[in-house]
Amino acid sequence: MAENKKKVEAITSMDVDFAQWYTDVVKKAELIDYTSVKGCMVIKPAGYAIWELIQKQLDDRFKETGVENVYLPMFIPESLLQKEKDHVEGFAPEVAWVTHGGLNPLQERLCVRPTSETLFCDFYKNDIQSYRDLPKVYNQWCSVVRWEKETRPFLRSREFLWQEGHTAHATAEDAEARTIQMLNVYADFCEQVLAIPVIKGRKTDKEKFAGAEATYTIEALMHDGKALQSGTSHNFGDGFAKAFGIQFTDKDNTLKYVHQTSWGMTTRLIGAIIMVHGDDNGLVLPPKVAPTQVMIVPIMQKKEGVLEKAAELKTRLASFGNGIRVKVDDSDKSPGWKFSEQEMRGIPLRVEIGPKDIEAGKCIICRRDNGEKVEVALDALEETVASLLEQIQVDMLERARTHRDEHTYVATSMEELSEILDTKPGFVKAMWCGNQDCEDSIKEKYSATSRCMPFEQEQISDVCVCCGKPAKKMVYWGRAY
Amino acid sequence: MAENKKKVEAITSMDVDFAQWYTDVVKKAELIDYTSVKGCMVIKPAGYAIWELIQKQLDDRFKETGVENVYLPMFIPESLLQKEKDHVEGFAPEVAWVTHGGLNPLQERLCVRPTSETLFCDFYKNDIQSYRDLPKVYNQWCSVVRWEKETRPFLRSREFLWQEGHTAHATAEDAEARTIQMLNVYADFCEQVLAIPVIKGRKTDKEKFAGAEATYTIEALMHDGKALQSGTSHNFGDGFAKAFGIQFTDKDNTLKYVHQTSWGMTTRLIGAIIMVHGDDNGLVLPPKVAPTQVMIVPIMQKKEGVLEKAAELKTRLASFGNGIRVKVDDSDKSPGWKFSEQEMRGIPLRVEIGPKDIEAGKCIICRRDNGEKVEVALDALEETVASLLEQIQVDMLERARTHRDEHTYVATSMEELSEILDTKPGFVKAMWCGNQDCEDSIKEKYSATSRCMPFEQEQISDVCVCCGKPAKKMVYWGRAY
Repeated sequence: MAENKKKVEAITSMDVDFAQWYTDVVKKAELIDYTSVKGCMVIKPAGYAIWELIQKQLDDRFKETGVENVYLPMFIPESLLQKEKDHVEGFAPEVAWVTHGGLNPLQERLCVRPTSETLFCDFYKNDIQSYRDLPKVYNQWCSVVRWEKETRPFLRSREFLWQEGHTAHATAEDAEARTIQMLNVYADFCEQVLAIPVIKGRKTDKEKFAGAEATYTIEALMHDGKALQSGTSHNFGDGFAKAFGIQFTDKDNTLKYVHQTSWGMTTRLIGAIIMVHGDDNGLVLPPKVAPTQVMIVPIMQKKEGVLEKAAELKTRLASFGNGIRVKVDDSDKSPGWKFSEQEMRGIPLRVEIGPKDIEAGKCIICRRDNGEKVEVALDALEETVASLLEQIQVDMLERARTHRDEHTYVATSMEELSEILDTKPGFVKAMWCGNQDCEDSIKEKYSATSRCMPFEQEQISDVCVCCGKPAKKMVYWGRAY
Repeated sequence: MAENKKKVEAITSMDVDFAQWYTDVVKKAELIDYTSVKGCMVIKPAGYAIWELIQKQLDDRFKETGVENVYLPMFIPESLLQKEKDHVEGFAPEVAWVTHGGLNPLQERLCVRPTSETLFCDFYKNDIQSYRDLPKVYNQWCSVVRWEKETRPFLRSREFLWQEGHTAHATAEDAEARTIQMLNVYADFCEQVLAIPVIKGRKTDKEKFAGAEATYTIEALMHDGKALQSGTSHNFGDGFAKAFGIQFTDKDNTLKYVHQTSWGMTTRLIGAIIMVHGDDNGLVLPPKVAPTQVMIVPIMQKKEGVLEKAAELKTRLASFGNGIRVKVDDSDKSPGWKFSEQEMRGIPLRVEIGPKDIEAGKCIICRRDNGEKVEVALDALEETVASLLEQIQVDMLERARTHRDEHTYVATSMEELSEILDTKPGFVKAMWCGNQDCEDSIKEKYSATSRCMPFEQEQISDVCVCCGKPAKKMVYWGRAY
């Protein structure tokens, strides 16, 4: 029993200490484990299965837009990393360097890719000759390394898993269109699959990607009122193409530089799921990324026929429609323990079935997201479960949207901005003059950053919240992960 | 037209220069590209799509046996790598070392994983406490690095993609059973999915994995008569468990060491597909791993109705059964170019459809594997294509098996062994006394290695082919990749 207890013992309340609550959840829902490799984590089966569902559904959406997957080396020779000036400045301070191969020192040291723009450019330089070769719309699923000082599971680690799309186009318009297209794929994926509403917008120059002309972002609000950048899409213009000499012969028979984009999403999304949907009983998974969607818990399972009935219901659910992901917990723990475990792991639905239920031809279904219990006739089990899973997906998005909207404020002065950030954390909408000094000042004074200049602009006031000069843009500000 | 020509110009004949033929195929079928990173390759869309099909089908088979996927760090601290003596001796000479993180030297250098036994042991040490925690049957899909001097696309590169399964069991029997179970999964996968017949057996001590008690292997024969080790499964006994202190409390309340296994398959399988099935026109893909199974080539496509009919046939095929993977080549190249391209890329079936065919309500279907053409009524298209794809899969395995059997010889003396290896390359079955000196001698004299001691033993003679002492095992010998 000691072992069972370990799993279901109370976790820190999120209102008491959100950071500790997060750590408790990732450990007790068995998503990750720490390792002897500082700043790196083990993603355990319960965590990796979420990532597999994210990968599958995101990859399907990519392929619908014509994306092809490839794989490029994990190493970047130092001279290659240095070819684009802004890019190397942004990344060189935080890469891991390989200096020896086997027993010998390398002639040129290699960094472990922190991102692969330079490798794709080096590849495209030879692969692209003619307008007929364009566009190239390639993506890879891999791990990358950034030598972070402070790390937290899923949110910031020295190695993380992601996808990175890298495209090349004949015109600036095509590149911009793909940049926005992928941002929309990301936003739609977050809302429809992860049940996380996002703000779409453009990063300020201060916050954009090293080497990009424009960086677009989707920003989500966590339960504690902090923002999480959840996906980014960059338009490089022809900057990398000029640095690497990526030219093609166009239809008019002249040599032109390609226009490029890149876009990425990472295992950080699992952190977002935890912090948007979780509660004091643990993880709460949206059905579309729940490795197990239904846990059947037999009551008085030693009574004749109970385990058989549970197994029968499992088979029925597993073969319904496209297949519901279902398990039976037939371990020798008590039902109470099993309930707590199912809740900790965030499994969307629990089906309780005991001898009396069987006699009455019914069962109890309990929702993880809101705790509601319903009695359901066994004949109607499949339809009810399928429709509840759909409903949960919808309700979770709606609840997250309400939370986000209730924690989005407006500030027209530095005093207001300060008060909001200190007393009721969330997004703060405020006007900005476009000058980086004001951004720096807000960051320094309130530890808040510009999250994005949203596509949906509002005219809150005419002047910059910081300097009082004429305002150019409405910006979402916030403290962020 | 220059661009088209590049793709379909003649490749070196395999009989003239097999190595050059191989290089031509990987380049012209657009499977890979070379990079600025010495010894590493780009896997292009046509190559990566094959790997995705391999991954999906292998992963499904793993999961049917209870395997769970995880992800462990790519770095191994030097002290961790050194914990198991044989293992570090085997791998330390060929790893890449990270010595700097960002701008600072590391306190302890890290190697990029060449394989992850030590990381899994470090993880299991904490994760396994009780017999209730066993077995652990984990796997990860990732890339690994081995600092090879000579490299060849897919066959031997400094970085390659693979899966590595790592399991822990309560008893030696359970570990041995899992080792063999996974070898059987591999063998079945090679035969049923890749259409490659394999010899299952055990490696000699000289050839076994660094740190293993026993290594089992599947060995395939390439078209040129050389062997390719295509998958291995290792039983570690409790050697690693003792080195790392991985103990559990058994049912009898005593502390015991776990027994472990590992098993892996790599992108090398793509090399095997090329070298077993390819011909002088390029790649020949088994339908189950062909990203495109059918290429529809419209004839006189500018005539009214031809492209529309091709598109209609595509839609019909794509929605038949579980979906046939089909494309239409409606580019402005000539049909002849399109045929050559489809052949170079190894697409199993080509459907030719022109104005006369449409009028007659039929089309031509041509098989890539044997060049056979059949005329098919359009009404019967889906059924015919589906059944041809099945037939090709069967025929390709059968053809590869015949080639393998016809190139498997018996030697009872060193003279015979030598003559076979020099004049008609293939597997050579010969008896062995069990002494490593004889193995060394055969390797030194004939550049042939013991591929395996097959499970299906035969008593070819009573004495060792090398030293004449009493024989213990029949061994498959061969020159290998």
